[in-house]
Amino acid sequence: MARPGGGYHMTPDEFRRQGAAAVEWVARYMEEVERYPVLSQVAPGDIRARLAAHPPERPEAFEDILADVGPTLLDGITHWQSPNFFAYFPANASGPSVLGELLSAGLGVQGMLWATSPACTELETHVLDWMAELCGLPERFRSTGPGGGVIQDSASSAVLCALLAARARATEGGTRLEDLQAYTSTQAHSSVAKAARIAGLRDDQLTLVGVDGDYALDAEALGRAMAGDARAGRAPFLVVATVGTTSSMAIDPVAAVVAAAAGHGAWVHVDAAMSGPAAICPEFRWVTDGLEGADSCCTNPHKWLFTNFDCDCFWVADRAPLLDALSILPEFLRNAASESGAVIDYRDWQVPLGRRFRALKLWFVLRWYGGEGLRHHVREHVALARELVGWVQADPRFVLAAPAPLNLVCIRHTAGDEATQSLLDQVNASGRAYLSHTRLDERLVLRISIGATATERRHVLALWQLLSDAADVVSASPSATPPG
Amino acid sequence: MARPGGGYHMTPDEFRRQGAAAVEWVARYMEEVERYPVLSQVAPGDIRARLAAHPPERPEAFEDILADVGPTLLDGITHWQSPNFFAYFPANASGPSVLGELLSAGLGVQGMLWATSPACTELETHVLDWMAELCGLPERFRSTGPGGGVIQDSASSAVLCALLAARARATEGGTRLEDLQAYTSTQAHSSVAKAARIAGLRDDQLTLVGVDGDYALDAEALGRAMAGDARAGRAPFLVVATVGTTSSMAIDPVAAVVAAAAGHGAWVHVDAAMSGPAAICPEFRWVTDGLEGADSCCTNPHKWLFTNFDCDCFWVADRAPLLDALSILPEFLRNAASESGAVIDYRDWQVPLGRRFRALKLWFVLRWYGGEGLRHHVREHVALARELVGWVQADPRFVLAAPAPLNLVCIRHTAGDEATQSLLDQVNASGRAYLSHTRLDERLVLRISIGATATERRHVLALWQLLSDAADVVSASPSATPPG
Repeated sequence: MARPGGGYHMTPDEFRRQGAAAVEWVARYMEEVERYPVLSQVAPGDIRARLAAHPPERPEAFEDILADVGPTLLDGITHWQSPNFFAYFPANASGPSVLGELLSAGLGVQGMLWATSPACTELETHVLDWMAELCGLPERFRSTGPGGGVIQDSASSAVLCALLAARARATEGGTRLEDLQAYTSTQAHSSVAKAARIAGLRDDQLTLVGVDGDYALDAEALGRAMAGDARAGRAPFLVVATVGTTSSMAIDPVAAVVAAAAGHGAWVHVDAAMSGPAAICPEFRWVTDGLEGADSCCTNPHKWLFTNFDCDCFWVADRAPLLDALSILPEFLRNAASESGAVIDYRDWQVPLGRRFRALKLWFVLRWYGGEGLRHHVREHVALARELVGWVQADPRFVLAAPAPLNLVCIRHTAGDEATQSLLDQVNASGRAYLSHTRLDERLVLRISIGATATERRHVLALWQLLSDAADVVSASPSATPPG
Repeated sequence: MARPGGGYHMTPDEFRRQGAAAVEWVARYMEEVERYPVLSQVAPGDIRARLAAHPPERPEAFEDILADVGPTLLDGITHWQSPNFFAYFPANASGPSVLGELLSAGLGVQGMLWATSPACTELETHVLDWMAELCGLPERFRSTGPGGGVIQDSASSAVLCALLAARARATEGGTRLEDLQAYTSTQAHSSVAKAARIAGLRDDQLTLVGVDGDYALDAEALGRAMAGDARAGRAPFLVVATVGTTSSMAIDPVAAVVAAAAGHGAWVHVDAAMSGPAAICPEFRWVTDGLEGADSCCTNPHKWLFTNFDCDCFWVADRAPLLDALSILPEFLRNAASESGAVIDYRDWQVPLGRRFRALKLWFVLRWYGGEGLRHHVREHVALARELVGWVQADPRFVLAAPAPLNLVCIRHTAGDEATQSLLDQVNASGRAYLSHTRLDERLVLRISIGATATERRHVLALWQLLSDAADVVSASPSATPPG
């Protein structure tokens, strides 16, 4: 069944036709996702059991492939784009972003070097400067000086690159790998420990510093730990501060971290993956406090700025240590532009060599929404979270488990972990909303993250009703009765 | 300018309308790309100069954004999808792949855990088994045993994961990080050295083993190096063999590498990023020779199997060392399915935590083309390369610079480097084709990689005519006259 033209490729005309069908599929998904059970209820192996045991030998019609997606996969999907998705983080995609991704896939260029597609590199550098301006980042992170920005796939990769740059800076000064010591809080994302392990550090080369009552890093404890290590002959080389921890959106005191690190010459990386996007609103710009002393920082438009995964914005104040850490130049990549020093080659700013044209979707998003539209929706999410906090605080069955500075609300049931677990199970089994959990001070906590693109006030109200009904069930059950 | 509905989001109906326009944009790009100069001729800064200095404050209409893409970016694009693109590697996208990417972006799910979208994980495991079957990989790489496959963004990340798994296996046995020794050939991709550096190895902990006359790794030299290191107290822990080197598509002798590594318990990773896809054709299945003794391998559908970047297929024979290297489980990711041990959590198979639904596009490609269609086009590319080899060999102005086992042809001008450089400059400046270069035995070599989706015999013929005309210019210039 060779297709028209003698080969098997999809012609541009067939792409037009099938592309329209694929767009219709996505549009309908956007319309219908609200009605799907948010958390997939399939059992392990259910989806594989529907797939052909062997790869197809004969070509299939695109209509048949597309028609198969729903019946085969859809009930195995946990719907991150549902307005009733309140788990993990928002991961909020949007129409302009998805269409930017489509164009990027169609262009199919490689951005590993400036020379392999100059527009891919220059647009990226430019929109990262735009982002820095929108968020009010310190001047040092703009590309006009020795610093600048790059898109990473995720904040995990950003912290790995920061760690590698910090390691390069420290070891070039003569420090041995085995003497390096890194610091972050007990509430930091697991990606910090993963990066340290990847980079060849032993587990005891990462110190998890304690936190205060709001789950933010205790800068005095950090200072003491660094001083003690330095006296013991260890070399504090990196501190990772978090602006919006995963568990509870705690905001580490970046300025105090910078001050503590300064005496040791340690690199300060600020992981603002979760809360950084709030900086586009002047009233939330405090999330950038202290950044003028940081060496690198990142935030995730793919979490809370209407850009589909992957799009992590990573900035460094000085690109030299990053290049020292990651630049290896084989002959087959040499070119006049790189050797002139006049261009950026982003392959040296990341772990992999190849890279997609991810700036296109961010450019689309920034232009479609404008600063005005982005601020409108971020404010709306924070306002909804604050309204929810009010409801929680007025209800004796619930406890607010941590401060809710922005769009994450952490709650637990007054009656304890078993009751809280029951709330979680009831909500998630209902299919009408999806929450994830964490532990704070050893206690089980429900995380309510507000920020899916389609989430409106009515969805938060419906979630509150669900939680309230679930709490009634808990209160009525014997095991939740307080002892007495 | 809040949009209909009070917010700034793109409604499903507007997505339908703008999606159709975006599909039309891509279809027209597919039709017109053949006529564009392949290599962008812009100077550094040209593209940025066209972009607004500051981020937009007011929302823009999608029509305006889309209309801007061409004038602003297109002459800054090096056209990897042009049928006249013969540089680096094919990076061949296709309609079904691009539409799979569109659906993946629209679904916007996270595949970090099985639980965060079971279909995302199970389809990936399944199509990697399909790929293993299509390529005739040894049974050990199927998910039905202790091994299995995963999609990485690139072969760079795959080799890093292999190295980290090998490091975990070796250091769990008590070996110290500083005593580890890795091996690859002088012709291996720079990603091996980059991975070693990221993992905390010193430069001298990676031995670059010499090659034979065909630029393939010299297995006897490898054996001697490993034995010598072991006698000196070093611990050979990893060998990376390449099936299709970047410079000349040399094929390392995998079975001999496996034999050399066996006595030291070293992990063998086979990087078949470039040439692995050929294994779908029985007559080229020799590219998998020796794999039954390898610990891991990878190949890139985003290079030569009509799947847009990123899609690297990475298989391990035993997933345990990989999980030992990369698994860190914070409370907020705990879930019943993971704890049952009945599911795969792909976050533990890669560097980042987050991951896109990349299996969808590969599933679309495998079903659209079928084994039959994929084989047809891979065979066509190899046949075109062989025809070109014949023309080169029959023309005294050119020298075939290396064996051309599959779809890469390496040539140089008989008159030396200056003449070869002139060929490269003339071809690339013409805009009618794009070649990249390398050095083999210190001599400048042009690489002609055949495999863009739209490349047909007429394009290879036109390239040959271009090269021939360029060689005439070289021969006519005084500097190319042989001394005498």
